[in-house]
Order: sequence, then C-alpha cells, then structure tokens
Amino acid sequence: VLDLLRALRKDTGGYDLKQCFIGAEGTLGVITAACCRLHPAPRGFGTAFAAVPDADAALDLLGELRHRSGDALTGFELIPAIGLEMVVRHVPGVRPPLDPQTSPWYALIELTSFDSPADAEERLVAGLEAATGRGWVIDAAVAAGEGQRQAFWKLRDAMSAAQKREGASIKHDVSVPLSRLAEFIRDGESLVAERVPGARLVAFGHVGDGNVHFNVSEPVGGDRAAFLAVRENLTAAVHDLVARYGGSFSAEHGVGQLKNAELARYRSPAELALMRSLKAMFDPDGIMNPGKVLPAG
Amino acid sequence: VLDLLRALRKDTGGYDLKQCFIGAEGTLGVITAACCRLHPAPRGFGTAFAAVPDADAALDLLGELRHRSGDALTGFELIPAIGLEMVVRHVPGVRPPLDPQTSPWYALIELTSFDSPADAEERLVAGLEAATGRGWVIDAAVAAGEGQRQAFWKLRDAMSAAQKREGASIKHDVSVPLSRLAEFIRDGESLVAERVPGARLVAFGHVGDGNVHFNVSEPVGGDRAAFLAVRENLTAAVHDLVARYGGSFSAEHGVGQLKNAELARYRSPAELALMRSLKAMFDPDGIMNPGKVLPAG
Repeated sequence: VLDLLRALRKDTGGYDLKQCFIGAEGTLGVITAACCRLHPAPRGFGTAFAAVPDADAALDLLGELRHRSGDALTGFELIPAIGLEMVVRHVPGVRPPLDPQTSPWYALIELTSFDSPADAEERLVAGLEAATGRGWVIDAAVAAGEGQRQAFWKLRDAMSAAQKREGASIKHDVSVPLSRLAEFIRDGESLVAERVPGARLVAFGHVGDGNVHFNVSEPVGGDRAAFLAVRENLTAAVHDLVARYGGSFSAEHGVGQLKNAELARYRSPAELALMRSLKAMFDPDGIMNPGKVLPAG
Repeated sequence: VLDLLRALRKDTGGYDLKQCFIGAEGTLGVITAACCRLHPAPRGFGTAFAAVPDADAALDLLGELRHRSGDALTGFELIPAIGLEMVVRHVPGVRPPLDPQTSPWYALIELTSFDSPADAEERLVAGLEAATGRGWVIDAAVAAGEGQRQAFWKLRDAMSAAQKREGASIKHDVSVPLSRLAEFIRDGESLVAERVPGARLVAFGHVGDGNVHFNVSEPVGGDRAAFLAVRENLTAAVHDLVARYGGSFSAEHGVGQLKNAELARYRSPAELALMRSLKAMFDPDGIMNPGKVLPAG
C-alpha cells in the first residue's frame, strides 16, 4: 500500500511516483483514493457556433481567442459539415444554428466567465468580430441563454451516435501537434479517399488539445463486408500518418487490449523495455489488469 | 537514448515515462531536449500591494480573486511586516507603498490581462474593493505603470538578500495544503518562539501554490553560535510540523544532498523502496548525479 495522497501543488521530495499511475489503466496498481483541486464555479458562459473556411482558419481562430482569453477559453470543438448533417438527419429536434451548406467546417466555442456573468460573451463576440475581419470566420451564432447553449453542445455530443446510424465505421482516436493539425487533416482526407473511395471521413474533436476523432463511415450503398475488410490496413495507414506528424495513436481513449500492437509498433524498443520494467517493478506478479497496455510475454 | 519529445497535450499510448524525469534532479538520466508549450503574451498587468489583517484573510482574498479571475491571477505572494522592514532597511532606494506598521501581513498580487490591457487592473480593483468590504483587506496600493509594478516586485524579490544582511538564518522551503496554510503559519510561529526566544520568523512566499519559505533569522544581539547550534533540532521540529499538516519538506528547491535524511525520514518504507527501484531501473550503474536525492547504499 502506497500512500501518495498529498494535497500539494508543489512537492519536490523525491520521485513523483503518483505520476506513474496516471494513464496506466490500472495495470500498475489499484487507485483507492484521489485528491481533487477545486476551481471556482463559472459565473456564466459565452458559447458560439461558427462557420470557418477550413481547419487552418479554425486554428487561427483558436489562437486569437486564446490570446484574448487565456485559460478562460474552455471549449473549442472542430465539427465537419458531414458530421453536422448526420446529426441533423438522425437526432430528433436538432436544428443547426447555421445552414450546414455554409462551409465544410464549423467550430463550437465556449468561454467561461469568472468575473461578471456577461464577461465571457462580450469577450467571445469581440473575438469573433476580429476573426471575421481577418477571414477566419464566415458566419457565427452566439447562444442566447442556457437552452441554446445546451442545444449547441448537443450538436457535438450527438455526433458519435449519429455516425453509428450511418452504418459501419472505422474509428481512430489520435492527437498531433496543434501547429500541424490542419495539414494532418488534409493529408488524412487524401489518404481515406485513395484507400476507400466513397468512404465518408468525419474528423471532429477537441482541437484545443490537438485531439481528433478521425472516424471513417462506410460508403453510401457500398459493400459493408468489403469496407470492414480494409479496417486493419486503413488503421495502420492512419496511425503511420499520425506517427509521421509526431502524434499519438491514442489521444484520450487509452491502449487497453485493442491497441497493444500499436503500442509495440510505434514506441521505440528503449521506451518499450522501460515500460516493461516499470510494469514488473510495480506489479511483479502480473495481477494488475492483466492483458491491458503491455500483454505478458 | 529515450526519445520522449512528443509535442502533444493528449497522449495515452502507454506509460508516461517522461513524468519520471520531472523533478528527479538529473538522477535518472540527462535531459537533452525539451518541448515548450507557448502561452499568449500578456497584454497588461494589474499589480497591487495590500495590507491584510492576517494570513487567514490573505487566503480569503486569494479565493475571492481566483473566483473573479481564474487562472489570470498569476501572482500572489505573502509578505510579513518583518520581511518588509528588512528590505526597507537594507535595499537602497526601496520605498514600501504602504507603511509597514499598517499590519503584520501583506500580499503582493498580480493579475494578467489577455484582452484589453486595462482589463486586469479593473478586475483587480473590483476584487480589492469587495475584499475590503468583507474585512480581508485593510489598505491597498495599485501600481500605476510598469515602473511601480517593478518597484512592488522588488520588495518581494529582495527579501532573501535583505534577510541575509540580518545575520545567520535557518531556512525551510515547505509546502502545506492551501486550506491549512494560515493555521500552519500560526503553529510555526509558536514553535519558533518556544524553541529560539527572540528569533525572527520571516515566512513568505508563493501562497497561491501553498509554498512558504519559512526562514528564521537569529535574534538581534544574540549569540550566533548558540543560534546555529539549534539548526538541526529546529529544522526537524519544523519539518515534523509540516508532516503533521500533510505537507512537504521540499516544496520547490528539491532534495539534493542536503535533504537526503529528510527524504528517508518522511517518506514511507514502501515509497522509498519503489523510489530505489525506479533509480535502479533507469540508472543501474548509479552514474546519474550520484549522491543526490537517494544516496547509494
């Protein structure tokens, strides 16, 4: 039993063993208690749905809003028109604030107020105006009240469920350095178009974190078995592309059992050897969540 | 050679070995390259020097300003009157913005503007007014321009040098949970007064991080050798007190060679055993910064 429950922001007393357990998916030990840092409750939100000309413009807009708001920029989700159309088609009662024909790309943006409740919205509107003047925003709708705010977020939150209704899909949870994200998406689009003609790429996600859910839906009216047969090759090609961009094959979903082979493929022998040593150090008997992350043998 | 230079905010692909090296003081390996996340340059600052009735009030003021400004609160330093007096006495050209007789405790506060340059100052003034109304602030001066801002910071930055001019001192770099910091300082004051009558406690530091430089200057006109003879006992008593508060004997300065014994004393056998295993794993030959953090044998 290891008691690392120190509620300290600064502690340089020896190696920070706690960090080893974060993201280890329970394979190094069982976490039985955690200590949380509380943040002030927000006093209000400014939430917008904006059409942007392309993913590059979305990143410029992100930079502009971060410059104006720092860490008060609390949400920035990239949404492709094709994903928006799927949500509109399958989720009852959803109405997009902008016509999905406005652009191939949209951003759902949220700023948080810490001071006066209206602060975030004022800042957001000023930022959107500046970005519009520089060509980074085509059109934008700002949520008037909590109901509209939730309706905007539903467009994003329903995307996975809506994509499921469009048939089979091959999914990738990847991250790349933020500065190369737009270029990665363009290369990824070409890759999918070449390998699986007619397949529909829905690339969306937490762009502020460099995280993209790079999901490919089967072609309309195509052969599902033929589509699923390319899964392994397509995924390898997408993950190879991610690696060339200095990215990760697992942004937020983890390795589990599904990506054991990816871990072995994309991490260096030196890194893998140390990961195995770390596993053996904390879990010499191999009893912690066996088979996950690093399979035995 | 381990290449962990991934410029990613999200990466759950296996164990995060990079974290082991952070704070390890070079004892696990030599870091040859790092990747930095850039933040937007500030557009302005709001900086204040405030007299507070006591350390509890300083923490209430900190909470109020965090509630109003979130992470735009970028500096919050607690300063005792005795430290302020030492700076005034020894640093030429320094003039405190408030009379050091106003209170036993002061806070140097800085907010950063991301939007309009004046934003931080407006927010700071509103926060100070609210805090004054609630009895957490006695009096405050807001820096008018960059020159005054730098003069305010000089009061804080010169504190260690000024304390050196007051003779011998016994220093502690400790952290405690923020919620118990005021209580810890009170207990620490009593401890010092009991153990070394006449000694002058200068407790100051980055209170937003729960970090206190708990430094004790020798009594005026006392016997220096007698004062320094209590060092080991006093330090043990201070660090025991810190441990009772769930704090750390090393907040930001690290273990090095000076605090090897403290590490062995305050970390559990289970934690120490794993630290030794981690050291052996990364540095089996014991060639990385030997003698630091965990001495051999």
